[in-house]
Amino acid sequence: MQNKGYFITFEGGDGTGKSTQLRLLSEYLSQKGVANTMTKEPGGTEVGQELRQLLVTGDKDKFDAVAECLLYYADRRVHLASKVWPLLEQGAWVLSDRFADSTVAYQYYGYDKKVPYETLADLYKIAVGDFKPDLTLIFDLDPEIGLARSFKKAEGMAVKETRHESRGLEFHKRLRQGFLEIAKKEPERCVVIDASKSIEEQHKEVVKIISERFGLS
Amino acid sequence: MQNKGYFITFEGGDGTGKSTQLRLLSEYLSQKGVANTMTKEPGGTEVGQELRQLLVTGDKDKFDAVAECLLYYADRRVHLASKVWPLLEQGAWVLSDRFADSTVAYQYYGYDKKVPYETLADLYKIAVGDFKPDLTLIFDLDPEIGLARSFKKAEGMAVKETRHESRGLEFHKRLRQGFLEIAKKEPERCVVIDASKSIEEQHKEVVKIISERFGLS
Repeated sequence: MQNKGYFITFEGGDGTGKSTQLRLLSEYLSQKGVANTMTKEPGGTEVGQELRQLLVTGDKDKFDAVAECLLYYADRRVHLASKVWPLLEQGAWVLSDRFADSTVAYQYYGYDKKVPYETLADLYKIAVGDFKPDLTLIFDLDPEIGLARSFKKAEGMAVKETRHESRGLEFHKRLRQGFLEIAKKEPERCVVIDASKSIEEQHKEVVKIISERFGLS
Repeated sequence: MQNKGYFITFEGGDGTGKSTQLRLLSEYLSQKGVANTMTKEPGGTEVGQELRQLLVTGDKDKFDAVAECLLYYADRRVHLASKVWPLLEQGAWVLSDRFADSTVAYQYYGYDKKVPYETLADLYKIAVGDFKPDLTLIFDLDPEIGLARSFKKAEGMAVKETRHESRGLEFHKRLRQGFLEIAKKEPERCVVIDASKSIEEQHKEVVKIISERFGLS
């Protein structure tokens, strides 16, 4: 076994089923005896939970795109420094529901480049440095299907986390294209998963990718 | 009268009396018929109030210096975009209890340069751009006196805003030097006020500076 854990991020639009796949991979790893932690952004820490409430609830225009990027990166820094990095050092695998690609996809592509790409690159450098995920799985799905799922899920929530969902279909089409652009730019790190396949089929694919990359038998 | 208002920031360590001087100047301007708004950082907006709670209460090590800078700049961006800039456009004067110099003084000088100066300059560029205060008043006081005042004030508060005060005297000595360095670097923008003088003496000095700079009679 390696001494240091792997950092695997799960990315994609709302309602693509990435959280389900994350949970299934965590269960699989645990069965294989691999120490792993499930986490998420925003809100992977106690401080982050408070930021998550600010970020994913309420009016979609409550702050501008630049403020939003700063808040996501504040959450990210707390998440890395107080949780992800220490876990990786201990040798655990860390599976994160969203990471920096989401900020590029939502705040750059989704917002139609309202925030300069350079700003996001500067924030990455400030908050994350040279660190990056060992593997990123991008779950790709027609946003009409994803949004319908996401709103249905929110019906059962006490606090509706639908601030981004409320941005409409055009936003979510740009978002999907954004994730595909990111995957194209970094083919070594990113693998696109067809999220229209069944949960079981996707899980098998994820396990295959993980096993090949990280030498699990 | 000018068409655009002035942005005046009040800076200094904890317990230097800058908030009192801000209020006195606001009253003076109102008497002169000058539209003005008192505001503060962090927490000058509704979103900012939630960030302020995160930033100024609780354990001093609840997040690291980089996360803290990102949060202060998120608050600053919301403050500027949703309050300060619109007010200035309307011709009002805006008096702010703290602004970007506090981030440099606390997070760079106070933390003994744990955060690179370049990081703070990048964040300023991202969140504030080319905008800067028309005038900055820096209230200078021996930190032993300031801290004693500040803790005394906190005794009456329901939520103790003493996260920074708890960093100890050496921190606050570096902080004071930091503010003086800032004033030295930008003598056009910054004026240092001796905060050991009486409230009335300081107020007279502030009025004199304002009158000379902005042509009030």
